[in-house]
Amino acid sequence: MIIIGIDPGSRYCGYGLIQMEGRRVLAAGCDVIDVTREKELPMRLRKLYEQISSILDEYKPELAAVESMFYHKQIKSIFTLGHARGVVLLALANKGIPLVEYSPREIKKSVVGNGNATKTQVRYMINQLYGLKESPRRDDAYDALAIATCHYNRLKWMK
Amino acid sequence: MIIIGIDPGSRYCGYGLIQMEGRRVLAAGCDVIDVTREKELPMRLRKLYEQISSILDEYKPELAAVESMFYHKQIKSIFTLGHARGVVLLALANKGIPLVEYSPREIKKSVVGNGNATKTQVRYMINQLYGLKESPRRDDAYDALAIATCHYNRLKWMK
Repeated sequence: MIIIGIDPGSRYCGYGLIQMEGRRVLAAGCDVIDVTREKELPMRLRKLYEQISSILDEYKPELAAVESMFYHKQIKSIFTLGHARGVVLLALANKGIPLVEYSPREIKKSVVGNGNATKTQVRYMINQLYGLKESPRRDDAYDALAIATCHYNRLKWMK
Repeated sequence: MIIIGIDPGSRYCGYGLIQMEGRRVLAAGCDVIDVTREKELPMRLRKLYEQISSILDEYKPELAAVESMFYHKQIKSIFTLGHARGVVLLALANKGIPLVEYSPREIKKSVVGNGNATKTQVRYMINQLYGLKESPRRDDAYDALAIATCHYNRLKWMK
């Protein structure tokens, strides 16, 4: 089974994948979709849709996890973020992939043990958990894998 | 030439069409896409995407006009609205239809002559302008045709 965590953004969209067999993690990784070469929002959304759809085709995740809501950003950011998230939800619906949502607090609490953890702490824990090599990945990539991890942790509790 | 005005929403999405030849309006109409039968946001977005895409295929507008930003709604509404608008922008980008944006104030000023006009005033003016029969259309439909009208008025000024 593969879980994908997605951290949508209208410039960078993080995604993280966890492949598991029962409780055992076979592989995990994360990266970002970078659509900053497109200047206009409609074209960025198009690229984002194309690339997230092709990632879903390639890895065929059974489930997607995304962050629920942002309250701490400016209204304009919220609005633009909504556009990107809408396109991601559309791609998931088109592939018939169900969605779970977790709040930023739940995610940090689940991964770091502290709902107020910093980005650096999240990055450190994700690297530790999966033995990822430190690399110049953007925070969005780690955040996405943290979202998937939060759901993975939840799964274990339900068994 | 056909202009489409779109008033996106995650439950009802208004659209209005103006067909013109030079400055002369040949036909105008408006309606809403109603996706309220779908309970989950991803499925509503999917229906919205499908239906707006099929409207674009049917009428082949050369240009789309949408409202720029909302500032007066609650954060959660803004976020959800962003999702719907993102899906609409994606559909436009996929069809290669360029987009112009107008603020709510510009639209009301252009259609009614008053940037603070009420929904009733907008509805009245749209019905008058195009000789539409009063019908139980939702405000979203009139708002969409008002957005297209705002662009139509702008076009005349540039000639």
